[in-house]
Amino acid sequence: MQKKSSNLGVAILLMISIFSGESYSFKAADKPPNIIIIFMDDMGYGDPECYNGLLYHTPNIDKLAAEGMRFTNFYAAEAVCSASRAGLLTGCYPNRVGIYSALFPWSEIALNPKEETIASSLKKAGYNTAMIGKWHLGCKPPYLPIHYGFDEFFGLPYSNDMWAVDYSGRPINDTTNWKSKFPPLPLLEGDKPVKYIKTLDDQATLTTTYTQHAIEYIKKNKSHPFFLYLAHSMPHVPIAASPAFKGKSKEGLFGDVMMEIDWSVGEIMKALDKNGLAENTLIIFTSDNGPWLRFGNHAGNGGGLREGKTTTWEGGQREPCIMRWTEKIPAGTVCNKIASTIDLFPTIANICKAPLPKEKIDDVDILPLLLNDANANPRDEFAYYSPEQGNNSLEAIRKGQWKLIFAHSYQTFKRDSIGHNGFPAPVMRAKSDFALYDLRTDPGETHDVKAFYPEVVKELDEIANKYRQTLGDDLTNMPCKECRDDAKINL
Amino acid sequence: MQKKSSNLGVAILLMISIFSGESYSFKAADKPPNIIIIFMDDMGYGDPECYNGLLYHTPNIDKLAAEGMRFTNFYAAEAVCSASRAGLLTGCYPNRVGIYSALFPWSEIALNPKEETIASSLKKAGYNTAMIGKWHLGCKPPYLPIHYGFDEFFGLPYSNDMWAVDYSGRPINDTTNWKSKFPPLPLLEGDKPVKYIKTLDDQATLTTTYTQHAIEYIKKNKSHPFFLYLAHSMPHVPIAASPAFKGKSKEGLFGDVMMEIDWSVGEIMKALDKNGLAENTLIIFTSDNGPWLRFGNHAGNGGGLREGKTTTWEGGQREPCIMRWTEKIPAGTVCNKIASTIDLFPTIANICKAPLPKEKIDDVDILPLLLNDANANPRDEFAYYSPEQGNNSLEAIRKGQWKLIFAHSYQTFKRDSIGHNGFPAPVMRAKSDFALYDLRTDPGETHDVKAFYPEVVKELDEIANKYRQTLGDDLTNMPCKECRDDAKINL
Repeated sequence: MQKKSSNLGVAILLMISIFSGESYSFKAADKPPNIIIIFMDDMGYGDPECYNGLLYHTPNIDKLAAEGMRFTNFYAAEAVCSASRAGLLTGCYPNRVGIYSALFPWSEIALNPKEETIASSLKKAGYNTAMIGKWHLGCKPPYLPIHYGFDEFFGLPYSNDMWAVDYSGRPINDTTNWKSKFPPLPLLEGDKPVKYIKTLDDQATLTTTYTQHAIEYIKKNKSHPFFLYLAHSMPHVPIAASPAFKGKSKEGLFGDVMMEIDWSVGEIMKALDKNGLAENTLIIFTSDNGPWLRFGNHAGNGGGLREGKTTTWEGGQREPCIMRWTEKIPAGTVCNKIASTIDLFPTIANICKAPLPKEKIDDVDILPLLLNDANANPRDEFAYYSPEQGNNSLEAIRKGQWKLIFAHSYQTFKRDSIGHNGFPAPVMRAKSDFALYDLRTDPGETHDVKAFYPEVVKELDEIANKYRQTLGDDLTNMPCKECRDDAKINL
Repeated sequence: MQKKSSNLGVAILLMISIFSGESYSFKAADKPPNIIIIFMDDMGYGDPECYNGLLYHTPNIDKLAAEGMRFTNFYAAEAVCSASRAGLLTGCYPNRVGIYSALFPWSEIALNPKEETIASSLKKAGYNTAMIGKWHLGCKPPYLPIHYGFDEFFGLPYSNDMWAVDYSGRPINDTTNWKSKFPPLPLLEGDKPVKYIKTLDDQATLTTTYTQHAIEYIKKNKSHPFFLYLAHSMPHVPIAASPAFKGKSKEGLFGDVMMEIDWSVGEIMKALDKNGLAENTLIIFTSDNGPWLRFGNHAGNGGGLREGKTTTWEGGQREPCIMRWTEKIPAGTVCNKIASTIDLFPTIANICKAPLPKEKIDDVDILPLLLNDANANPRDEFAYYSPEQGNNSLEAIRKGQWKLIFAHSYQTFKRDSIGHNGFPAPVMRAKSDFALYDLRTDPGETHDVKAFYPEVVKELDEIANKYRQTLGDDLTNMPCKECRDDAKINL
């Protein structure tokens, strides 16, 4: 990462903006907008009420949607934590930057700090930057957010279930249990632990504590453009709600947890209102991957999409995504075009006049979608890479309404079992054949139509080959020329 | 139907309103609200854009939702045309009033005109009443809308595919083809044909013609409370769009047809605005049953719900439902409570101070849901009766998040086939075992959890028995005491 233009002041930023020839330009009177990304963990396509069909309420998330734009074909970069977050922050398919699957505290890789991130780019454009919540792109110092462009960090280094505690919430002392080798789960400020998460009661404080820190940060930065990346630990298992929300949804603990998240979204909106920042802040609300279905009543809801987290079925990667940017994004609109978390980097960079990396990235600028340009369709295709360790193969490709699936096996749970109250169902592997689905009429991926559309199969197969050449297919025999296989840090 | 209080004037109506002790009461200054039901044909849960995930736009339907309430657990009375419409208009499960499946021009039954309908009730309360569109509760005079409480009728007596025309749109002269016995398909005014629908071009005029009649009716009645039941023929096959919309969605003919429907919804809203009626009109937008999936790219989208029309799976009966009533229903709200088309009669009767039938009906007043009362839950259960002829059995029961399925067979289409451009895939029968689904986490009905919740199975089974006793189970051996098996007219 070569720093050639660090900390440009706001005045200079505005001058650059005025003379830029890009599709969006600030008016002279505009301040550069603040950016807030609220990133959920394991929330499904069907979890927010404005995405249909549940029995609990999410009025604040719905209000965000009513005041902004709701995306219905929006994809996480990949269907597990670390890979998804690598894609979000770098604007790359995760295998380009060498982050697959989920990292563990003992993993010997991390995202390379030389990679440009949304945070490092916005810092160059003069923004203050902070991350609150779950990181998961490097599990120990110095591979923590403050080395990737964030001025500040408060949160967990990785997932909240990476602790030596069993499914009922009791500490594990039995050294034959693999989970006993987890180190204490630290809550960090910068690189330093300020507390350890030891019990379910500690877990229950996370949403509210993150929210309080976010509100403080907004207040502190009301006179300076900022980027806040608020990556909630919930509703990832072990789910827990603070006493103020426990039992309140009347729809079980998962409902309570979603109510607390919804409250948090409302508090962020209130903090923006209070500090006069509501209009000039782009809020993006989405999730890292779909519901972890093996946890049954402690899992989210894929809204009828097939399967969930860890799979390339729609339930694994299609996510709710809401963007609000008052007076720029038309209120109450729906965007049905394909977009992805990997598109956020160039879009935000364009909006904030921040530099993009010199290295190749995979994203497209979706600002025309935000501005509701009916003719815009910047990303009409998406490549679904396996989120599973050691096998980062291209499992499916989408173009327009069509999704072509290549034969593969995937992780799901045993159907004679069920997850309940924190205890998961056992996993099993299932197989998918080569198949074509029409996502317009069959979003649940139930009816293979490859026999009827050979020309579509051919077209999508050719697109897949293009991705194979640039991004690889199966780590054990990676033909990829452009992916930065060595971009990750090997510890 | 005993008429004891016909045509009360508006002044008298208001006096009654003021002194009523019911949950909703007009202010003295309130005029009785107009009621418009826009009833779609074979539109699926995933078809309007505000219900997720498609590639075409429905901005007017979405606007209606943004200005009103969107229901996410709303059920058609049954999963085929005639039965569903019987439930809607009478407030009864269809087997109570003897209308099963879809009537044919040669069917020897009709809804008994002595049944009270929303129209006949509102007429007694002094409303003007009109029906525009598809009737399908009796196929020949005198069993047409004007004999069931509607002052006026303009539309088709039954489905738009009940004609002697083949799937490519050519007339059938071959008398060995069973479709050759259909009589000419009349467009009626009152009891009299004004035109015959002979070609796909004629079909393409239906949406716009119905809309023009609806706009005229609104204008004509701007000074008098009215009930308008606008039952579109589209998007039931054979689908067709007028030249103004053909090719416009860029997502195929189904998208074009939905765009024209959406335009129609916008025109209705504009007509209300123009005549100063926007605030004092309750608009209800829903559909008779789910998508007819065997028609492939000419079918709608169940939004990931399982199966479609003709089945008691969620895709057959769960429907989009939007209600707008400015300043009464809070704008942009979502109702996740269970409700059904059979609940509209007492709800409308309450709002309009119209009389309810003396005979037993099955519906509940859902006005508290419309008024967004968080504690209200007037219908926590729903009985799914088979829509298939001669076998009106109880196939499933829902309470809260749980759905218990009783072993049954159902009609679907052969999966080695596909419907295309108006030609359907062949049908086949499939079987369902006894199963329990958690609709909160599994709206797609994929994971049977009966083994894990025996107490839920027991509770739902007891509820099912209650329905069996009052509404029957299997026509061939109907134990029902209260259902009006002879309520239908036998011609």
